[in-house]
Amino acid sequence: MGLIVQKFGGSSVSDAEGIKRVARRIIDTKAQGHEVVVVVSAMGDSTDELLDLAAQLTDDAPAREMDMLLSAGERISMSLLAMAIDQFGESAVSFTGSQAGLITDSTHGMARIMEVSPQRIRRAIDRGFIAIVAGFQGMSKESKNITTMGRGGSDTTAVALAAALGADVCEIYTDVDGIYTADPRVVHAAKKIDTISSEEMLEMAASGSKILHLRCVEYARRFGVPLHVRSSFSTNEGTWVLPDPNDKIKIQEGEPLEQPIISGVAHDHSEAKVTIIGVPDIPGKAAQIFGVIAAAQANIDMIVQNISTKGSGATDISFTLPMTETKRVLAALETARGEIGFEDIEHNDEVGKLSLIGAGMRSNPGVSFTFFEALHQAGINVDMISTSEIRISVVTDADKLNDAVRAIHTAFNLDTDVEATVYGGTGR
Amino acid sequence: MGLIVQKFGGSSVSDAEGIKRVARRIIDTKAQGHEVVVVVSAMGDSTDELLDLAAQLTDDAPAREMDMLLSAGERISMSLLAMAIDQFGESAVSFTGSQAGLITDSTHGMARIMEVSPQRIRRAIDRGFIAIVAGFQGMSKESKNITTMGRGGSDTTAVALAAALGADVCEIYTDVDGIYTADPRVVHAAKKIDTISSEEMLEMAASGSKILHLRCVEYARRFGVPLHVRSSFSTNEGTWVLPDPNDKIKIQEGEPLEQPIISGVAHDHSEAKVTIIGVPDIPGKAAQIFGVIAAAQANIDMIVQNISTKGSGATDISFTLPMTETKRVLAALETARGEIGFEDIEHNDEVGKLSLIGAGMRSNPGVSFTFFEALHQAGINVDMISTSEIRISVVTDADKLNDAVRAIHTAFNLDTDVEATVYGGTGR
Repeated sequence: MGLIVQKFGGSSVSDAEGIKRVARRIIDTKAQGHEVVVVVSAMGDSTDELLDLAAQLTDDAPAREMDMLLSAGERISMSLLAMAIDQFGESAVSFTGSQAGLITDSTHGMARIMEVSPQRIRRAIDRGFIAIVAGFQGMSKESKNITTMGRGGSDTTAVALAAALGADVCEIYTDVDGIYTADPRVVHAAKKIDTISSEEMLEMAASGSKILHLRCVEYARRFGVPLHVRSSFSTNEGTWVLPDPNDKIKIQEGEPLEQPIISGVAHDHSEAKVTIIGVPDIPGKAAQIFGVIAAAQANIDMIVQNISTKGSGATDISFTLPMTETKRVLAALETARGEIGFEDIEHNDEVGKLSLIGAGMRSNPGVSFTFFEALHQAGINVDMISTSEIRISVVTDADKLNDAVRAIHTAFNLDTDVEATVYGGTGR
Repeated sequence: MGLIVQKFGGSSVSDAEGIKRVARRIIDTKAQGHEVVVVVSAMGDSTDELLDLAAQLTDDAPAREMDMLLSAGERISMSLLAMAIDQFGESAVSFTGSQAGLITDSTHGMARIMEVSPQRIRRAIDRGFIAIVAGFQGMSKESKNITTMGRGGSDTTAVALAAALGADVCEIYTDVDGIYTADPRVVHAAKKIDTISSEEMLEMAASGSKILHLRCVEYARRFGVPLHVRSSFSTNEGTWVLPDPNDKIKIQEGEPLEQPIISGVAHDHSEAKVTIIGVPDIPGKAAQIFGVIAAAQANIDMIVQNISTKGSGATDISFTLPMTETKRVLAALETARGEIGFEDIEHNDEVGKLSLIGAGMRSNPGVSFTFFEALHQAGINVDMISTSEIRISVVTDADKLNDAVRAIHTAFNLDTDVEATVYGGTGR
């Protein structure tokens, strides 16, 4: 008995069969005595089809109109889902983002949720209805325009509603059984994680794990919403992402376990590395460089600077960033070369990033040794290193990345015998 | 210089090329110094595609959800149209029905407009924007749900906005050059009508002319909105439908003309005829019969009752109604046969209705003679007759209907030498 928010992505509702399967799933949850609020994304490829239509007209669509266009996708999927539920004998009612009280800022295409006023949703569930809410969209506070939230927007919608409604859990349905200790397509022996803290999940998401978006995990952590990531194709328990690490024990039904040292291994093929060579080793140069990069609207990930070679008076600064942003950043840096006074600039798209994540490494001094020893044994060269309290990340050659992931996974005893099931793509 | 509301149907915006053509058209109007508000329907077949998806899930969709689903179509077309206008260098902003202040009752699928509060539209055009509004949809006053207006809804949206904004004209763009003296597919010599009164246009629409919906003409007449029905494929003047017949003279640029006796000939293949034989000729029987029909939710058109044959004490009552409603009405009447006490019931789907419309026939006693003489000469048998002050309608055999239309068109000197251009289907 409780209030459950369930989120289904576009691949779960890509056709009539998928919509029916999701409808039955929702009805089953209701039948167990729960109140149910559902957040749904646009059907399968429908967003791409809308983008395609827009591209036939312009390559520079006004952002407000693009949001108006894209928001149509969820209207279609949510009303169809409500119809399917009705056909199976339960009552559902669908709500657009603005009807559901999702108030955002005015940043079209990347809107952030400012407040949630879910009175209509509350009334609907109080009357015994299943509430279906459009993911990914809201209404801007100031201009009352329709906004969309960008990647991960539907997950974030679900978490925001769960927080505002005081839901017991926010279930994120996806095409895998949960979060794995590594990407099962790379590490066949990867193991499903039963529980993970929000903090660790944040590091996983930031390090390339694609199942949950960073933003949704941040939101869930901030508002204390437990997430349950599970497959829409099975009824297996998935992975619980818990804002309070002490909840882990509660979840495991009275069988308190030592917290594992390591949660998992994440990897990322989408970054590039840039090295700025011969930066004058005087105060303010780094700030100047990253000011130029920020002005180019790029998101820097890892940054490494070594001490300057004795006597040279100059140093090298390396950083990684999304590959798609390399061109823009290089151009911005070249323009500022004279002003900054560096010697040269190099970049490399053929890199990969591997991250080992685990809250347990805080109090476990042997982790770094095991980590680098395993890479060494596997003959993998490390290019850059960066760490946080609960994460070690390295940059390697792109073609060595998968080997590195497998080596680390094995070294930390994460391998299992059961092979993971992977079903398809992911939606919004 | 003025405010123009333009309505484009689904066939005008069925693909990117169509949207671009419409965008240029709108920009041309703005360039002439006008303020422009545009009402647009869903793209081409997109509504049918949505209905198809729903049909895969249920054959009895909740009306509220069906409206939510269908309203997505205009979101897509209107935002794409705004993008196309932007691409051509003008600024446009799109509005859903509820954003445009179209407040309706709660009859999903057949909602009627209750009030129009176009403040956002007004502000947009005051700031120099072209406003694009979703046709066919609004928001219900009580429940704040999204509603759709059924057939002719986009035309009605356009007229309602024109009335609320005090527009100088509401232009209805379609795939023909205007209203013709008869259907050009039947009468090749049909002539485009330059001006027609709302009153006559109402009779034309009620008599089977498909270009404008009855509802839209009624609205325009009630609120004194001049309509200009014209082609989206040419810049020719179309047909002006004028609420005040005296405006006709104004429109014809200082060249006052005698009002023509006849406006045109309309015909309708979609009706069936029902005759109830041997109805007891006592007071209250007709009321009883039409009470039964009303309870079956059918729309009766023509009704004819002859005086009873001397001494029989019984009479026959005939009426026409949409063919699609025949089955329902016959069943209702059969159920009530004992109670009403009629002898028999006949029905015939193979009928056609022809109507001659013209405000001038009020003061022109020769019209009826010319009308029936022409039908006689053409060897056409008349089955039922019904008249209003400005209309004569007859029911004939279906296979004689087109001949009848041509005979009447010729008899009233409506034929022209120029052949009409017909382009395609019609939208919402």
